[in-house]
Amino acid sequence: MFRHVVLFTWAEDATDEQKAAVAAGLGRLPDAIPEIRAYALGSDAGVNPGNHEFALVADFDSVDDYLVYRDHPVHQAVIAEHVKPILAARAAVQFTV
Amino acid sequence: MFRHVVLFTWAEDATDEQKAAVAAGLGRLPDAIPEIRAYALGSDAGVNPGNHEFALVADFDSVDDYLVYRDHPVHQAVIAEHVKPILAARAAVQFTV
Repeated sequence: MFRHVVLFTWAEDATDEQKAAVAAGLGRLPDAIPEIRAYALGSDAGVNPGNHEFALVADFDSVDDYLVYRDHPVHQAVIAEHVKPILAARAAVQFTV
Repeated sequence: MFRHVVLFTWAEDATDEQKAAVAAGLGRLPDAIPEIRAYALGSDAGVNPGNHEFALVADFDSVDDYLVYRDHPVHQAVIAEHVKPILAARAAVQFTV
Protein backbone atom coordinates (compact mmCIF):
# COMPACT_ATOMS: atom_id res chain seq x y z
CA MET A 1 0.00 0.00 0.00
CA PHE A 2 1.15 3.53 -0.70
CA ARG A 3 0.26 6.22 1.83
CA HIS A 4 0.13 9.97 1.34
CA VAL A 5 0.27 12.20 4.43
CA VAL A 6 -0.06 15.97 4.31
CA LEU A 7 -0.34 18.52 7.12
CA PHE A 8 -1.48 22.13 6.71
CA THR A 9 -1.22 25.30 8.76
CA TRP A 10 -3.66 28.03 7.77
CA ALA A 11 -3.09 31.73 7.38
CA GLU A 12 -3.93 33.75 10.48
CA ASP A 13 -6.80 35.50 8.70
CA ALA A 14 -8.36 32.26 7.40
CA THR A 15 -12.03 32.05 8.38
CA ASP A 16 -13.86 29.06 9.78
CA GLU A 17 -15.88 29.00 6.56
CA GLN A 18 -12.73 28.79 4.45
CA LYS A 19 -11.33 25.99 6.63
CA ALA A 20 -14.63 24.12 6.41
CA ALA A 21 -14.59 24.47 2.62
CA VAL A 22 -11.23 22.70 2.51
CA ALA A 23 -12.52 19.77 4.55
CA ALA A 24 -15.72 19.59 2.49
CA GLY A 25 -13.90 19.81 -0.83
CA LEU A 26 -11.31 17.19 0.07
CA GLY A 27 -13.98 15.01 1.65
CA ARG A 28 -15.75 14.72 -1.70
CA LEU A 29 -12.66 13.36 -3.48
CA PRO A 30 -13.20 9.66 -2.64
CA ASP A 31 -16.42 9.84 -4.68
CA ALA A 32 -14.59 11.46 -7.59
CA ILE A 33 -11.35 9.47 -7.62
CA PRO A 34 -11.84 5.69 -7.45
CA GLU A 35 -8.13 5.05 -6.94
CA ILE A 36 -8.51 6.23 -3.31
CA ARG A 37 -8.58 3.18 -1.00
CA ALA A 38 -8.82 5.00 2.35
CA TYR A 39 -9.15 8.67 3.17
CA ALA A 40 -9.09 10.32 6.59
CA LEU A 41 -8.90 14.02 7.35
CA GLY A 42 -9.45 16.28 10.29
CA SER A 43 -8.44 19.31 12.29
CA ASP A 44 -5.80 19.12 14.97
CA ALA A 45 -7.27 18.16 18.35
CA GLY A 46 -5.25 20.76 20.26
CA VAL A 47 -3.60 18.22 22.53
CA ASN A 48 -0.05 19.37 21.80
CA PRO A 49 1.39 22.84 21.13
CA GLY A 50 3.20 23.68 17.90
CA ASN A 51 1.20 21.36 15.68
CA HIS A 52 -0.06 21.97 12.20
CA GLU A 53 -3.82 22.59 12.01
CA PHE A 54 -5.14 19.98 9.59
CA ALA A 55 -4.15 16.47 8.49
CA LEU A 56 -5.01 14.26 5.56
CA VAL A 57 -3.99 10.59 5.26
CA ALA A 58 -4.82 8.84 2.00
CA ASP A 59 -4.06 5.25 0.97
CA PHE A 60 -3.61 3.84 -2.53
CA ASP A 61 -2.74 0.48 -4.00
CA SER A 62 0.34 1.87 -5.73
CA VAL A 63 2.45 4.93 -6.44
CA ASP A 64 0.73 5.19 -9.82
CA ASP A 65 -2.69 5.35 -8.18
CA TYR A 66 -1.41 8.08 -5.86
CA LEU A 67 -0.22 10.03 -8.89
CA VAL A 68 -3.67 9.75 -10.45
CA TYR A 69 -5.04 11.33 -7.26
CA ARG A 70 -2.30 13.97 -7.00
CA ASP A 71 -2.84 15.18 -10.54
CA HIS A 72 -6.61 14.63 -10.79
CA PRO A 73 -8.37 17.80 -11.97
CA VAL A 74 -11.01 17.61 -9.23
CA HIS A 75 -8.24 17.41 -6.60
CA GLN A 76 -6.30 20.21 -8.24
CA ALA A 77 -9.44 22.35 -8.26
CA VAL A 78 -9.89 21.92 -4.49
CA ILE A 79 -6.23 22.86 -3.95
CA ALA A 80 -6.49 25.96 -6.14
CA GLU A 81 -9.88 27.16 -4.91
CA HIS A 82 -9.81 26.24 -1.22
CA VAL A 83 -6.37 25.18 0.06
CA LYS A 84 -3.91 27.61 -1.52
CA PRO A 85 -5.83 30.82 -0.67
CA ILE A 86 -5.47 30.13 3.07
CA LEU A 87 -2.27 28.05 3.17
CA ALA A 88 0.53 29.25 5.44
CA ALA A 89 2.60 26.05 5.74
CA ARG A 90 2.52 22.51 4.37
CA ALA A 91 4.37 19.32 5.32
CA ALA A 92 4.09 16.02 3.46
CA VAL A 93 5.47 12.50 3.12
CA GLN A 94 4.51 9.63 0.82
CA PHE A 95 5.65 6.19 1.95
CA THR A 96 5.11 2.51 1.34
CA VAL A 97 3.20 0.76 4.13
CA MET B 1 -10.52 6.56 16.63
CA PHE B 2 -7.77 9.00 17.45
CA ARG B 3 -4.89 9.33 14.99
CA HIS B 4 -1.41 10.70 15.58
CA VAL B 5 0.63 11.79 12.55
CA VAL B 6 4.22 13.00 12.76
CA LEU B 7 6.74 13.83 10.03
CA PHE B 8 10.48 14.23 10.53
CA THR B 9 13.31 15.78 8.57
CA TRP B 10 16.77 14.61 9.59
CA ALA B 11 19.92 16.59 10.09
CA GLU B 12 22.18 16.72 7.05
CA ASP B 13 24.89 14.74 8.82
CA ALA B 14 22.53 11.98 10.00
CA THR B 15 23.82 8.56 8.95
CA ASP B 16 21.84 5.73 7.44
CA GLU B 17 22.52 3.76 10.62
CA GLN B 18 21.02 6.51 12.77
CA LYS B 19 17.95 6.73 10.54
CA ALA B 20 17.55 2.95 10.64
CA ALA B 21 17.79 3.01 14.45
CA VAL B 22 14.81 5.40 14.57
CA ALA B 23 12.70 3.10 12.42
CA ALA B 24 13.76 0.04 14.42
CA GLY B 25 13.16 1.71 17.77
CA LEU B 26 9.75 3.06 16.85
CA GLY B 27 8.85 -0.21 15.15
CA ARG B 28 9.24 -2.04 18.47
CA LEU B 29 6.71 0.20 20.26
CA PRO B 30 3.57 -1.76 19.31
CA ASP B 31 4.98 -4.69 21.29
CA ALA B 32 5.67 -2.46 24.28
CA ILE B 33 2.54 -0.27 24.31
CA PRO B 34 -0.72 -2.24 24.01
CA GLU B 35 -2.77 0.93 23.55
CA ILE B 36 -1.47 1.14 19.96
CA ARG B 37 -4.19 -0.06 17.56
CA ALA B 38 -2.37 0.54 14.26
CA TYR B 39 1.14 1.72 13.55
CA ALA B 40 2.69 2.53 10.18
CA LEU B 41 6.02 4.19 9.52
CA GLY B 42 8.36 4.70 6.63
CA SER B 43 10.78 6.87 4.74
CA ASP B 44 9.60 9.29 2.10
CA ALA B 45 9.37 7.67 -1.32
CA GLY B 46 10.98 10.60 -3.13
CA VAL B 47 8.03 11.16 -5.45
CA ASN B 48 7.66 14.86 -4.61
CA PRO B 49 10.26 17.53 -3.81
CA GLY B 50 10.22 19.44 -0.54
CA ASN B 51 8.87 16.61 1.58
CA HIS B 52 9.87 15.62 5.07
CA GLU B 53 11.94 12.40 5.20
CA PHE B 54 10.02 10.10 7.53
CA ALA B 55 6.39 9.56 8.54
CA LEU B 56 4.64 7.81 11.40
CA VAL B 57 0.89 7.27 11.60
CA ALA B 58 -0.46 5.72 14.81
CA ASP B 59 -4.06 4.97 15.75
CA PHE B 60 -5.60 4.71 19.21
CA ASP B 61 -9.06 4.12 20.61
CA SER B 62 -9.05 7.44 22.43
CA VAL B 63 -7.12 10.59 23.27
CA ASP B 64 -6.25 9.03 26.62
CA ASP B 65 -4.69 6.00 24.92
CA TYR B 66 -2.67 8.32 22.70
CA LEU B 67 -1.41 10.12 25.80
CA VAL B 68 -0.31 6.79 27.29
CA TYR B 69 1.75 6.26 24.12
CA ARG B 70 3.08 9.84 23.99
CA ASP B 71 4.33 9.73 27.55
CA HIS B 72 5.34 6.05 27.70
CA PRO B 73 8.93 5.67 28.95
CA VAL B 74 9.85 3.25 26.16
CA HIS B 75 8.61 5.77 23.58
CA GLN B 76 10.37 8.64 25.32
CA ALA B 77 13.59 6.60 25.35
CA VAL B 78 13.43 6.11 21.56
CA ILE B 79 12.85 9.86 21.11
CA ALA B 80 15.74 10.80 23.39
CA GLU B 81 18.22 8.20 22.12
CA HIS B 82 17.43 8.01 18.40
CA VAL B 83 15.11 10.78 17.16
CA LYS B 84 16.32 13.95 18.85
CA PRO B 85 20.04 13.50 18.07
CA ILE B 86 19.34 13.66 14.32
CA LEU B 87 16.15 15.75 14.21
CA ALA B 88 16.18 18.87 12.03
CA ALA B 89 12.42 19.49 11.68
CA ARG B 90 9.18 17.96 12.94
CA ALA B 91 5.54 18.42 11.94
CA ALA B 92 2.60 16.80 13.70
CA VAL B 93 -1.19 16.64 13.97
CA GLN B 94 -3.48 14.55 16.15
CA PHE B 95 -7.06 14.25 14.96
CA THR B 96 -10.22 12.28 15.47
CA VAL B 97 -11.02 9.91 12.60
